[in-house]
Amino acid sequence: VASQVSASWYSCSIKGLPLVRNLTNAPQSNYGRGGLSHLTIAGAVSHGMKEVEVWIQTMAPGSGTPIHRHSCEEVFVVLKGSGTLLLSTTSMKTRHPDEPHNFPISMNTTFTIPPDEPHQILNSDEHDDLQLLVVISQPPIKVFIYDDWSMPHTAARLKYPYYWDEECFQYNAKDEL
Amino acid sequence: VASQVSASWYSCSIKGLPLVRNLTNAPQSNYGRGGLSHLTIAGAVSHGMKEVEVWIQTMAPGSGTPIHRHSCEEVFVVLKGSGTLLLSTTSMKTRHPDEPHNFPISMNTTFTIPPDEPHQILNSDEHDDLQLLVVISQPPIKVFIYDDWSMPHTAARLKYPYYWDEECFQYNAKDEL
Ligand SMILES: [Zn+2]
Ligand SMILES: [Zn+2]
Repeated sequence: VASQVSASWYSCSIKGLPLVRNLTNAPQSNYGRGGLSHLTIAGAVSHGMKEVEVWIQTMAPGSGTPIHRHSCEEVFVVLKGSGTLLLSTTSMKTRHPDEPHNFPISMNTTFTIPPDEPHQILNSDEHDDLQLLVVISQPPIKVFIYDDWSMPHTAARLKYPYYWDEECFQYNAKDEL
Repeated sequence: VASQVSASWYSCSIKGLPLVRNLTNAPQSNYGRGGLSHLTIAGAVSHGMKEVEVWIQTMAPGSGTPIHRHSCEEVFVVLKGSGTLLLSTTSMKTRHPDEPHNFPISMNTTFTIPPDEPHQILNSDEHDDLQLLVVISQPPIKVFIYDDWSMPHTAARLKYPYYWDEECFQYNAKDEL
């Protein structure tokens, strides 16, 4: 619990943060998602960013993101490990996502997700963590989650605020009591 | 010249680029700026990005950015090395920038430049390169350059398109002949 509190303070509180911050020992959290370790480097809810947001995420072997879409731009740089990008490229022109294409991703590769294309990132490696640097526009992110690739676009559920933003909203609400 | 051509192709041509690209051997260029090595990972002129742009920049010892300002948001992550961030924090409220504050930056630190604050990043180390991951909003970037910290804000020169975007504009213009 103590590390959870300090993770919230570190990642949710604008006040008193130094301009230059060290990421080495920055507390990360899984925000209730198994195998995930997330850190918001610069965020809307957390640091008052208005146009861009930057994360570092580490995914344990076998874990990954949900199948999801969003209308913002998203850029990935793979910092460590390897995995798979699944991407359906029909956008919203069909009733539900197409069978996704599989793209291998590995350390020092980069890729951009086109707006509104359903996608998923998996650490498909058996041994090593997959670490990603993620950049999004239009923060805070509004994510639509699919249960599977055959779910109609209209049935995908909006998750807003998203996991880490939700915790910051709650933390800052508590802070104001 | 050959490597310059292939750098332009790699960083300026949208057509035929694979979705997942390897950065390891991606050609970088100094775009006429001594000590700089720049790579646009995802850019407006180069890859059709509309809201965010991501760069990797390597600065040799003693080199750095000009003193400059821009109205977009900018986030840095120091990937390697160390250096100095100089930042004047009065924005445009005075006639010229204030004497800048000096912040040491080093591997695994992050910082965000407030919009319109004049700033400069220097590799103040004598031996090692400084490598930065840079994220900006509102691409392509519109930069106002100062000769020194006592230059009035109104005298700062707009450099647009910026160095790497200029090369891509020229490359793509040639491509259309
Ligand atoms: Zn996404
Ligand atoms: Zn700048």
